[in-house]
Amino acid sequence: MAIKHGKFSFSFEKKIYIAGWGNVGGVKEQQGPLGGLFDSIEQDFYCGKKTLEQAEVHLQQTAMENALRRAGLTQEDLELVGAGDLLNQCISSAYSFRDSSLPYIGLYGACSTMALSTLIAATAIEAGIAQKTASLTSSHFGTAERQYRFPLEYGGQRPPSAQHTVTASGAVILSTEKSPIRLEGGAYGAILDAGVTDVNNMGGAMAPAALKLILDYLQETKTQPQDYDMILTGDLGSIGASVVLDLGKKRGFDLQSHYQDCGLLIYDRDQQDMHAGGSGCGCSAAVLTSYVLPKLKKREWKNVLFLSTGALMSPLSVMQGESIPSIAHLIHLKGEA
Amino acid sequence: MAIKHGKFSFSFEKKIYIAGWGNVGGVKEQQGPLGGLFDSIEQDFYCGKKTLEQAEVHLQQTAMENALRRAGLTQEDLELVGAGDLLNQCISSAYSFRDSSLPYIGLYGACSTMALSTLIAATAIEAGIAQKTASLTSSHFGTAERQYRFPLEYGGQRPPSAQHTVTASGAVILSTEKSPIRLEGGAYGAILDAGVTDVNNMGGAMAPAALKLILDYLQETKTQPQDYDMILTGDLGSIGASVVLDLGKKRGFDLQSHYQDCGLLIYDRDQQDMHAGGSGCGCSAAVLTSYVLPKLKKREWKNVLFLSTGALMSPLSVMQGESIPSIAHLIHLKGEA
Repeated sequence: MAIKHGKFSFSFEKKIYIAGWGNVGGVKEQQGPLGGLFDSIEQDFYCGKKTLEQAEVHLQQTAMENALRRAGLTQEDLELVGAGDLLNQCISSAYSFRDSSLPYIGLYGACSTMALSTLIAATAIEAGIAQKTASLTSSHFGTAERQYRFPLEYGGQRPPSAQHTVTASGAVILSTEKSPIRLEGGAYGAILDAGVTDVNNMGGAMAPAALKLILDYLQETKTQPQDYDMILTGDLGSIGASVVLDLGKKRGFDLQSHYQDCGLLIYDRDQQDMHAGGSGCGCSAAVLTSYVLPKLKKREWKNVLFLSTGALMSPLSVMQGESIPSIAHLIHLKGEA
Repeated sequence: MAIKHGKFSFSFEKKIYIAGWGNVGGVKEQQGPLGGLFDSIEQDFYCGKKTLEQAEVHLQQTAMENALRRAGLTQEDLELVGAGDLLNQCISSAYSFRDSSLPYIGLYGACSTMALSTLIAATAIEAGIAQKTASLTSSHFGTAERQYRFPLEYGGQRPPSAQHTVTASGAVILSTEKSPIRLEGGAYGAILDAGVTDVNNMGGAMAPAALKLILDYLQETKTQPQDYDMILTGDLGSIGASVVLDLGKKRGFDLQSHYQDCGLLIYDRDQQDMHAGGSGCGCSAAVLTSYVLPKLKKREWKNVLFLSTGALMSPLSVMQGESIPSIAHLIHLKGEA
């Protein structure tokens, strides 16, 4: 039975390990600072498929194959998967598992889904419902852009606060068998609506939800930022990340030297013209599986808080004048000898 | 730790009870056979709100209030909620909890979401992450129709195999405190794509997934249909329900006298012109909370399998010629003295 530290944070009683991880990125992700760390790169925007949506399904399936290979497992060894994506009705995930017989939990947490699905997959292990589970998410610039904004052919102008949807997928395999990275615990976050209505500033909208969960976790577990090698947020980008640092400082927490944001890590903003940084639920999934987990495995880091953050509006709710409800979920990772 | 009976089915080790339930319906649901069983009825299609989407948020909040009242609890007593709906980016659920500070798990399982969210809420209790949790879903004829098909004003013709999206919400509160209905266990289902491409026959598309999970559950728990007072599916409607019975018989299981479908229970198909029956993730939520749980409380039924079933396509995937991936999730309910 998990040990609760407070309203949000808990540690798993079982030793739950990251048995494997995998990812795949696109050309723009290859050109970014983490490009050399990806398991595979799809050079073709369509991944050789007829539609961009089929391409995103291909990304998920590739990330899962790469994760299973690293774990030395097959899909038949898994007992449950939690998955999600940004597309209406989460079709990337549903179609990825249409031919599997794997118990499937469909999740929608926008860009918060990678931490959410990993928590769900771990909670199932803690509850004894499964021994080996998987979590994965994806996003694709082409599918997201035409659904949330405009078809690419439209050539719409993007303001500097806008973020670029990452074309990538990341998958994680959890198991109770000992391996070098342990999922110590985490926190399911609550929705926080800070009143932001600008969909071109999702980082600013999500930052308060991310900061609140970081501070709740620190307070409830009686830890300080310096107790962690790194605290990462999913895809707040330049504006959201600076809001986290500024508001954190006002609350008495100097995060500066222990904080990174996946949306700022994935692209070279000087060279790549990516505005405020990367976004999409493939962003935190890709950074987790290409950058964070390998650092933990190599014991460069031993204690990490990883948050994914989601903006839960829809194009329709925005057109109706609604503000953006945001959420964050947190996983606590430990490198072990 | 849950006891697994096989690949899909499990029983919770903890005694997890239904502490309360609540619902709300619309006018067409009031006119149906279960009309008198609802906690509240919204006479206004807009529920007094400016948009249909805000109306659906109002339905969720009303169902939750009714459930909390029946449980004698407030939202502050809850530690986690799992919620979902049919709208793009699940906005009904996200906006329902925008002002709460309740840890929130966003789910997308189409019409399978009520059983899914209840399993998720129970799994969190089994894992020790929470003591009191909630699950809820909603659908609204107006919001679903304009998103999935056409605005109502278009007056599109519907074929006889089409189902009518239920305007309703249902919520369930789970707790470890003793009460007359216990959640014995359940099963997270896998995606099954039977190759159906007709979005006006979702019942037919979902039926094989529902039947497979029923038979898996029976086989894994070494039980027979007659061991249960009732086996219910979410919203297969007339075509899907007859597929379940026919295919079940071919597999050697005579379900006939122990089987009902929520989509057939909620409307009077002779009087109400509802084609193949009700659908939408409010359908199984409303029938569960107005009809099934009260029967268990009164001990008219003591042992019930309740499945919600979901069709995981999107309007875009259908336009792209894809078939409909389907899923079912199962909860096993017991009336106790």
